Amino acid sequence: MRELQDLQQLIDKAVTNLKYPVYPAELYEPIAYILSMGGKRMRPALLLMACDLFGGDVEKALPPALAIEVFHNFTLMHDDIMDNAPLRRGKTTVHEKWNQNAAILSGDVMLIEGYKLMMQVEDRLLRVILDIFNNTAVGVCEGQQLDMDFEVRNDVKIDEYIYMIRLKTAVVLGGALKIGSILGGADMKDAELIAEFGENLGLAFQLQDDIPDVYGSPEKFGKQVGGDIISNKKTYLLIKTLELANTDQKAELNKWIKAEQFDQQEKVEAVTAIYSDLQVRQHAETTMHTYADKAFEALEKINLPEENKQYLRDFADSLMVREY
Amino acid sequence: MRELQDLQQLIDKAVTNLKYPVYPAELYEPIAYILSMGGKRMRPALLLMACDLFGGDVEKALPPALAIEVFHNFTLMHDDIMDNAPLRRGKTTVHEKWNQNAAILSGDVMLIEGYKLMMQVEDRLLRVILDIFNNTAVGVCEGQQLDMDFEVRNDVKIDEYIYMIRLKTAVVLGGALKIGSILGGADMKDAELIAEFGENLGLAFQLQDDIPDVYGSPEKFGKQVGGDIISNKKTYLLIKTLELANTDQKAELNKWIKAEQFDQQEKVEAVTAIYSDLQVRQHAETTMHTYADKAFEALEKINLPEENKQYLRDFADSLMVREY
Repeated sequence: MRELQDLQQLIDKAVTNLKYPVYPAELYEPIAYILSMGGKRMRPALLLMACDLFGGDVEKALPPALAIEVFHNFTLMHDDIMDNAPLRRGKTTVHEKWNQNAAILSGDVMLIEGYKLMMQVEDRLLRVILDIFNNTAVGVCEGQQLDMDFEVRNDVKIDEYIYMIRLKTAVVLGGALKIGSILGGADMKDAELIAEFGENLGLAFQLQDDIPDVYGSPEKFGKQVGGDIISNKKTYLLIKTLELANTDQKAELNKWIKAEQFDQQEKVEAVTAIYSDLQVRQHAETTMHTYADKAFEALEKINLPEENKQYLRDFADSLMVREY
Repeated sequence: MRELQDLQQLIDKAVTNLKYPVYPAELYEPIAYILSMGGKRMRPALLLMACDLFGGDVEKALPPALAIEVFHNFTLMHDDIMDNAPLRRGKTTVHEKWNQNAAILSGDVMLIEGYKLMMQVEDRLLRVILDIFNNTAVGVCEGQQLDMDFEVRNDVKIDEYIYMIRLKTAVVLGGALKIGSILGGADMKDAELIAEFGENLGLAFQLQDDIPDVYGSPEKFGKQVGGDIISNKKTYLLIKTLELANTDQKAELNKWIKAEQFDQQEKVEAVTAIYSDLQVRQHAETTMHTYADKAFEALEKINLPEENKQYLRDFADSLMVREY
């Protein structure tokens, strides 16, 4: 089996070699720009990993892997417009560097280029692969819409939140693994199982991701602890708290959410105190483990040699064991 | 052969029957909304027409025809954001009725839904049809980018203008006819020829479209004569005039283009006078005939019974003979 890191490097190199027309410049330059920002290339690497685990040729799976990466960056380009984000990975976003219209239209072309890359598979697999890609792509759009809807709602339930992050982030991980496994020769049953593994692992990872913002140590977390609290970000912790809070706690919480002028540290401490009273960290961790368990259950059912399953187990462990 | 009008009605009914999920509402409602605005459904009708002319089953070609219509409306939804358009066909545009983010994201989903519809073809045709669809889609995006680029340039040449309108509008007509013909059983040679017919006819139609704004009679034109002149729209007439004008004429023209306060009738008369001096209407008509001739030449080479060719000739004539 190839190391995940090798696969990420392979993708990185292939991304650099992607060539687009030079004219019209404002249409194609933003594509090279956003793709050059880097990132972990996790989604395409997962596609290659699944292909490799099922005995497929990783080199042949490169174009569909690139399709996933180009698609992912299309969603980032459009999300950045919608979120009004000035920066991504420390660099100016496309709509800021060029203009909004360039970001809309370049994103549109990236989605089409994603399809072109995804079509570079054998004829007999074309329809099944594109069906998965279509479902994945629609899911991500639905997830982004729900994310925006939830930002302006104060009655979001935990189930809705999990449904949203499943669509917005987990579905692509499942989709990438599913496509990779099929390219590697997996049957539909194993392809479904590895998708289930990826989707649930992605959910667990995403749920875990909300915790260090509040409970991490500043040194290991690397970002300002409490940033989500300060910006009222609708995380699992906040949503669960709003769900569980009594009248007094809810009033206190809403006071902080609505406050426009406040001492940051004071807000972080006050909100964290309510989180602790309601034990939402424990709730988050329980939920996270539920999804991690589902991922491992799916993994055990996959028809692969023990050695390959161990590779997937190790990968899952490396994702889930984070110090913060 | 089925009447074009019948085919347009068939599309109209099928568009009404397209069903999308109800949730998330802000993602899917704009799709039904923009599709319900109507329009002539010319692009999908051309796809069905070509299928019919080559002896194919029009009913079976409905999903790819709908794909073309959904794709076309995706481009309209995003173009309206980019052009800051408040109205389309007299109705509020999606980004005005909902918001910009809804228009971006609904448009994205429409592009994906377009692919899903386009994939509803026989396996043996899937790749060839999607290749045409990809090329068409990329062409339209390039055309839109060039259109925006040209709006802020004052040195656009006629060749560039024609290249732009070919991509922005003609390529889809050619693509629709090509896909339809293949679904109807045409070989690649005839498919290329009918695409050539459609693309050149589309160009001729688009070039002709610039003329009535200046030279139409108010009753028959139905819009304000001179609207393009008042808004400095970069039409064939204006671009050709800027290309041919001597120093004095160019100065006069630029004075009117830059003027922020002016008498509309005076501007229309002054600019029309320069157009007439330089005979740009004649230039436009000559160029238009060149492309119409190319369309008819391609048509003659298509391997179809005389009766079917006559149908295409009549269709082309009906498009090109307009009273204004």
